[in-house]
Amino acid sequence: MTEFADFLTALTTIVGERHVLIAPDRIASFLIDVRRSYEGQALCIVEPADTAEVSAVVVLCAEHDVAITPVGGNTGLVGGGAVRGKNAADGLERPGIGLSLRRLDRIREISALDGTITVEAGCVLQKIQEAAAEADLFFPLSLSAEGSCQIGGNIATNAGGTAAIRYGVTRQLVLGLEVVLPSGKVINGLKRLRKDNAGYDLKQLFIGSEGTLGIITAAVMRVMPAPKATATAMVALDSIPAALEVLRRMHAAFGERVTSAEITERAYMDLVLRQLKAARPAFAETPTWSLLLEVTDSKDGADLKSPLEETLAATLEDGIAGDVLIAQNAAQAEDFWYLRHGVSEAIRHAGPNMSHDSSVPLERQGEYVSRTRERIIARFPEATPLYVGHLGDGNMHLVVMFSPDRFADRAAYQVVSAELDTIIDDVVVELEGSITAEHGIGLSYRTRLARTTDVAEIALMQGIKAVFDPKNIMNPGKMLPA
Amino acid sequence: MTEFADFLTALTTIVGERHVLIAPDRIASFLIDVRRSYEGQALCIVEPADTAEVSAVVVLCAEHDVAITPVGGNTGLVGGGAVRGKNAADGLERPGIGLSLRRLDRIREISALDGTITVEAGCVLQKIQEAAAEADLFFPLSLSAEGSCQIGGNIATNAGGTAAIRYGVTRQLVLGLEVVLPSGKVINGLKRLRKDNAGYDLKQLFIGSEGTLGIITAAVMRVMPAPKATATAMVALDSIPAALEVLRRMHAAFGERVTSAEITERAYMDLVLRQLKAARPAFAETPTWSLLLEVTDSKDGADLKSPLEETLAATLEDGIAGDVLIAQNAAQAEDFWYLRHGVSEAIRHAGPNMSHDSSVPLERQGEYVSRTRERIIARFPEATPLYVGHLGDGNMHLVVMFSPDRFADRAAYQVVSAELDTIIDDVVVELEGSITAEHGIGLSYRTRLARTTDVAEIALMQGIKAVFDPKNIMNPGKMLPA
Repeated sequence: MTEFADFLTALTTIVGERHVLIAPDRIASFLIDVRRSYEGQALCIVEPADTAEVSAVVVLCAEHDVAITPVGGNTGLVGGGAVRGKNAADGLERPGIGLSLRRLDRIREISALDGTITVEAGCVLQKIQEAAAEADLFFPLSLSAEGSCQIGGNIATNAGGTAAIRYGVTRQLVLGLEVVLPSGKVINGLKRLRKDNAGYDLKQLFIGSEGTLGIITAAVMRVMPAPKATATAMVALDSIPAALEVLRRMHAAFGERVTSAEITERAYMDLVLRQLKAARPAFAETPTWSLLLEVTDSKDGADLKSPLEETLAATLEDGIAGDVLIAQNAAQAEDFWYLRHGVSEAIRHAGPNMSHDSSVPLERQGEYVSRTRERIIARFPEATPLYVGHLGDGNMHLVVMFSPDRFADRAAYQVVSAELDTIIDDVVVELEGSITAEHGIGLSYRTRLARTTDVAEIALMQGIKAVFDPKNIMNPGKMLPA
Repeated sequence: MTEFADFLTALTTIVGERHVLIAPDRIASFLIDVRRSYEGQALCIVEPADTAEVSAVVVLCAEHDVAITPVGGNTGLVGGGAVRGKNAADGLERPGIGLSLRRLDRIREISALDGTITVEAGCVLQKIQEAAAEADLFFPLSLSAEGSCQIGGNIATNAGGTAAIRYGVTRQLVLGLEVVLPSGKVINGLKRLRKDNAGYDLKQLFIGSEGTLGIITAAVMRVMPAPKATATAMVALDSIPAALEVLRRMHAAFGERVTSAEITERAYMDLVLRQLKAARPAFAETPTWSLLLEVTDSKDGADLKSPLEETLAATLEDGIAGDVLIAQNAAQAEDFWYLRHGVSEAIRHAGPNMSHDSSVPLERQGEYVSRTRERIIARFPEATPLYVGHLGDGNMHLVVMFSPDRFADRAAYQVVSAELDTIIDDVVVELEGSITAEHGIGLSYRTRLARTTDVAEIALMQGIKAVFDPKNIMNPGKMLPA
């Protein structure tokens, strides 16, 4: 281990002793993911202060053939941030380090005229939302983990969230990136430009590449005019086609003002109501589907509530919706949102489960639900499939829950999990969807990516990886099938 | 030439004799670009009927080491579509063919619920706009060449246009691509998905790659709720900072409803008025800058005109604007747009000129104009710099015009052109902009790309090119510096 003693000394020289974390109790929290599915292993966690230090750390790791896993808020759901070593050319396992971006947390600039905010990778998402709001602007990326996830991770995983229907996913919000390449070279692409066609758009590759091509250290993101008026409703529905008809009418009435359309199935809603003390039911009886709708307008004083009432009253009269609640104030809207955001927390302590994150074309969401439910129940009658989705994006989250004593051990769990993957992959392929709408690939979905993707595409991805990271030190083993 | 006789026979077998154009008079129009800057050379122009034929043609070309230049509407401004041969490994010049996508012109599907339209690459942009409008939807890409440019070319060059301020550039409108790789392999990526994080997003590489990585044969594009209300105005201004203040107020008042903010400088407006018979001046005296503003709303009957009058009246009162005209009807709005769209036509017959297409951060557009004008006039006092821009995108087009007898020959022209490039590149780099906001690189800007881009980035681009097109048969010599 002399080699690594030297390596650690050199690391200390770069970032200072207190920013090289080695003691097991200090690094434990970095090595276990939020779902407790993956245990990491690391020589150390290193916390550089700035881009120059990140670059120096990368150069050192390249020299020592040490793997680097970028570590953000550790909120990923597929093991993309699990710190691991790599297999070196000599066949021996080489160790890895976790590179935390936590200290790169400055908001460098905000420009109302450009509609841009320039942030460092370690900024917590909520901090960016708040900085935008202080400047009377709006940063639309929003997801359950926003209090702890970091923007670098959001970009590296192309995060989606609850406002994508209107503002797009993270990719649509990125204008420029600063990236440290696996060679240590810093690419300064922090351009505040709306239009730039100077060669291949390399930043598009870093977005969603889960740290396998380089380390994002800063970004120029778009910010929008702040919404000045909001109206929120909850609609009780019998079926997905009915929900889609409501969505169609909402788009006809409100156009781009439709900001969220989040749908939760009965069993999942009941679980939230059981598990979360603060959850208050929207309806006396939980409907088959609860659709949370939000419309916003950047125009101060725009009346959204009365047209919302009108549009949804018509869906009641026409027998499409079973019941409609319009939030009468911000507190009631928050109650609705609490039910939606509560799903992650509710499932955490509800028993062993397997989580899926598919997208399909919008009108096929009903088929996605019926086909997966049918096949899962046929094979595992004891399972409870739970659905919650971003209806306007065709993105349905499916959690298959089992009773606490269903699996004797991890291996038994994994056998079922693998079989479920196959069932769901088949449905996704039939419906021309994606096996991973917003969670990414990480460690969890590599086999599934290989199963559902053309080999020619996988070969191109591997070719790109080899161009960017010829030594394979950047988050090795993640995303791409071996 | 026996080799190529065999090759041409084989081509004929694939697409039929009448779709292999060889006679000089039949291919002449394909071999000269709209600016008459580049003369192409081609064994033939081949017109496949569908994706399978495109694939078969590519396989044949790969076998014979024949270069392929995809040919769309031939409206590019930088020679990206100039049909050329390539330098083969044996040192001999290898000939090339032009592959016209003209016959792939079907609109395959339109889905109001998904907000998507699936189109083949040879569809003329205007046809897609019209198909969307027939379905009460809106395809927002709009540019002067829309009557003849093809969507495949728009995607391959990541076209911008006049509505990017609101809807983004072409990249933001693409959801899925069908692509024929340089191996002939067809990638079927025609997914109608808003969210898809299954591996590196390869389609992002094809967008804006100018046919150097493969041939786009079809695309799934986003369509939007149709605008149901529009208001248009023309504002007379003394300076860019004043124009930006008007834009800031417009965004504050209208948020995302601001759809266009197009600015034309006096000398360019006067040229349009001189050259185009149907052009009617907006103002009695041409102001220093004329700003064309348009706001739209998807809500039927939305009143935009009175708030527009109010917002712009305040800019008059505050001494920011010199004059304001609100279009009183559609005909008057069209007159305003005619002045804007007329610039390309006006310059075509106005004498020798050099065209630039830079973008800079929004608030630096004034500096861009003053620095370029100053340095150009200092070096070439006889030149007339003309400016027209997409103010809301930071994208300023600069045409430097000379008197008809200024250049003895093409070589003399090119010497001046190269010197101008350097002057403008320096300004762009100083202001952290892009030398090519929407026109791309093609043949014209390769040297400039190399001059203004980090060598590490160029090396990554070359690496990507080698992964996708190891035989270098796809539009060789374009975009990337040698």
